[in-house]
Amino acid sequence: MTTLIKNGTIITVNQNGDILSNASIRIEDGIIKAITRKDQKETNSEEIIEAQDLVVIPGFVQTHIHLCQTLFRGLADDLHLIDWLGSKIFPMEAAHDANSVYFSALLGVAELVRSGTTTIMDMGSINHEEEIIRAIAETGLRAFVGKAMMDLNDVYPPFKEPTDESLRSTLKLIEQWHNSYGGRIRYAVAPRFVLSCSDKLMQSAFEMLKSFSGTLFHTHASESKAETQKVYERCKMGNVEFLNHLGLLSDRTCLTHCVHLNDNEYELLKSTRTKVLHCPSSNLKLGSGIAKVPKFLKMGVNVSLGADGAPCNNNLDVFQEMRLASLIQKPFYGANTMKAETIFRMATIEGAKALGLEKEIGSIEVGKKADIVLLNLNDVHNPVNNSNIYSSIVYSSRPENVDSVMINGKWVYRKREYVTLDVDKVLKESLRELTALLKRV
Amino acid sequence: MTTLIKNGTIITVNQNGDILSNASIRIEDGIIKAITRKDQKETNSEEIIEAQDLVVIPGFVQTHIHLCQTLFRGLADDLHLIDWLGSKIFPMEAAHDANSVYFSALLGVAELVRSGTTTIMDMGSINHEEEIIRAIAETGLRAFVGKAMMDLNDVYPPFKEPTDESLRSTLKLIEQWHNSYGGRIRYAVAPRFVLSCSDKLMQSAFEMLKSFSGTLFHTHASESKAETQKVYERCKMGNVEFLNHLGLLSDRTCLTHCVHLNDNEYELLKSTRTKVLHCPSSNLKLGSGIAKVPKFLKMGVNVSLGADGAPCNNNLDVFQEMRLASLIQKPFYGANTMKAETIFRMATIEGAKALGLEKEIGSIEVGKKADIVLLNLNDVHNPVNNSNIYSSIVYSSRPENVDSVMINGKWVYRKREYVTLDVDKVLKESLRELTALLKRV
Repeated sequence: MTTLIKNGTIITVNQNGDILSNASIRIEDGIIKAITRKDQKETNSEEIIEAQDLVVIPGFVQTHIHLCQTLFRGLADDLHLIDWLGSKIFPMEAAHDANSVYFSALLGVAELVRSGTTTIMDMGSINHEEEIIRAIAETGLRAFVGKAMMDLNDVYPPFKEPTDESLRSTLKLIEQWHNSYGGRIRYAVAPRFVLSCSDKLMQSAFEMLKSFSGTLFHTHASESKAETQKVYERCKMGNVEFLNHLGLLSDRTCLTHCVHLNDNEYELLKSTRTKVLHCPSSNLKLGSGIAKVPKFLKMGVNVSLGADGAPCNNNLDVFQEMRLASLIQKPFYGANTMKAETIFRMATIEGAKALGLEKEIGSIEVGKKADIVLLNLNDVHNPVNNSNIYSSIVYSSRPENVDSVMINGKWVYRKREYVTLDVDKVLKESLRELTALLKRV
Repeated sequence: MTTLIKNGTIITVNQNGDILSNASIRIEDGIIKAITRKDQKETNSEEIIEAQDLVVIPGFVQTHIHLCQTLFRGLADDLHLIDWLGSKIFPMEAAHDANSVYFSALLGVAELVRSGTTTIMDMGSINHEEEIIRAIAETGLRAFVGKAMMDLNDVYPPFKEPTDESLRSTLKLIEQWHNSYGGRIRYAVAPRFVLSCSDKLMQSAFEMLKSFSGTLFHTHASESKAETQKVYERCKMGNVEFLNHLGLLSDRTCLTHCVHLNDNEYELLKSTRTKVLHCPSSNLKLGSGIAKVPKFLKMGVNVSLGADGAPCNNNLDVFQEMRLASLIQKPFYGANTMKAETIFRMATIEGAKALGLEKEIGSIEVGKKADIVLLNLNDVHNPVNNSNIYSSIVYSSRPENVDSVMINGKWVYRKREYVTLDVDKVLKESLRELTALLKRV
């Protein structure tokens, strides 16, 4: 299959930050084969997309999502992290069955795709990880997946599993699914957070990275003050210091949140090239705090964006995360911090780097995989001129500006219609599954 | 004309906070005449709207908007207030002509209406206020209008007018337009802020309230640290203290922002029943800070919401303001502060109170004017059940959930189509006017 996306405005997100007007992209078998200016000769293509009035961008990368929680949106508001987990999220996750996980994931994918997100890193629950993988596989999303590993649970004791069982099932999932679907689905081991994991679980999970190239280590750290304090009480050191003490910081380690750190922990993240996954809405909504992202960036620490789960956001919309990631820093670091282009790169190429995928996705360059989003910015809430196109996308755009989404060279959303999922069925079945789940809680 | 909105879920925003399922609203000549339960007899109506799958809410009230700035969206990013005004906004406002103001206002109204906003308080520029009024009159929006009064300008000296001229033109506008269009358009005198106004201008503007019942006093105060510091240098007291010193605080005084206040100023706002107009996006984007809204609410100070102008937001979307007004307080006041229902009331009945319109609008009650919005919440980004409908609206909804908008009993937006404006023309003419304006700057 060859596709030509013709005469669009291309935000390449290459090293130079080039924006090309009237340029075309030729895609063959899922790979970007050529980027040509209008006056260059175009090879015939099986599919030609007229993109004159569209802005062509790399698909967004969200590095921290919980698809299994999508059904719980609006059912756990106004709570701090520990209560949110203990009184709402853990009991609801524990009540999941295979079908409810599957439709929760599909509902989440529907929202992600529609907002132009083409790659995610997901953290699942203890059970039914294969249903999340099934939803991702069927819909065409690119993803790192990983079941949540928990062998401790003070706040909702029934929801955990024996250490060996958690490790065994994780290993089985990696063997089956890492690099499946031609590499579109990969695996990130996912011990949930220090408070839900024994040292042995954390360290054994990290050990698995050695045997499987391209896998990642994905966990939460230093999200709320109360959590950080509890970690300190148990470990007698900071959360990130403790992860370092266990030998778990590395350039394949992805730490979500990192809101409450001491000075030494900032240095540890830098020196180990650990990645920070920033979830601004979630950090506000759970009352956790505001991560010092400009400080990370100044130090050269990789920061990428994620919407987290639907019940702590309450959306999976990358446009809201981008706008907020910029706005919340300005009262503290100045109005000229976190400019739109910086944020846009954070949501594309920096996300790809966090996942070790920067040679494959995150920008529109020849040789990369065709994860491409077409935006229509001609709307009453967008600027009437394109003098600052990054501003238009980061500060003013919404999912409704997404016209089409291609992942791996295949359309998953075209002219604002889903290609790979039946959205009416997903909505209806999601409601049915949630109703049943709430009876099981 | 009689309209029956039939069998919807009605969020009344009455004193009890009643939410009525399967209820109908009968509207006659712009007034809500009856609210009936499904099993009650319905009088025949000329127009019947089937609202089974819709949520029926009072129209949103945004108490601080600058329609004349809509064209400038994306052209003044990443700047602090004083630079933003001096280097960008004042020069662009000064370059406005009648046509550019008119289309700037229409573009803003288009965005407001589509997001369910039915009433605004607008602050115009020095010139061409009648063009803003024309746009509001034609499109059917309910509004307090007011030309910006400025007789001082340190940061862009050409942009001001003599004190007497500012007062004279304001008086003329009040006489012509206050309570025009059957009271749909009213007047709020609008000295811009302390730094752009002589004491005489401020006091004479306030004096006008005595002669015109229902008018308001609308200004900015204590938005940024630098502005507050400059006011202190000139006046030797806090900004709100200075307004009090001039005798300008009252229950008809509306102060936008109020981010940087001393303890005495909080007490002054309370004791004078002055209204606070809160613009969370704008306060973040200009790096101004975060207003202590939970503190105001605890003290019983009226707080309402506004998107401010497009170039400091960069949207006029009440859903973004509501979500942000909740989220930004949670890291400081706790996750259970600023709950969705509180926010929803702030964007409806509290806004009406700020404008002295609480007996006319802001809730769905018999005898009130029919400013009504129909929401369709059946979408992938909304909860799949309605157990927390306020959460769904405040945390998860978007302008795309707005199905229809009625103001004063007349549809201005119906099934996601504009009734009173030609949006394609507005977009096209806005671009043309902006291009011409930028040449004039």
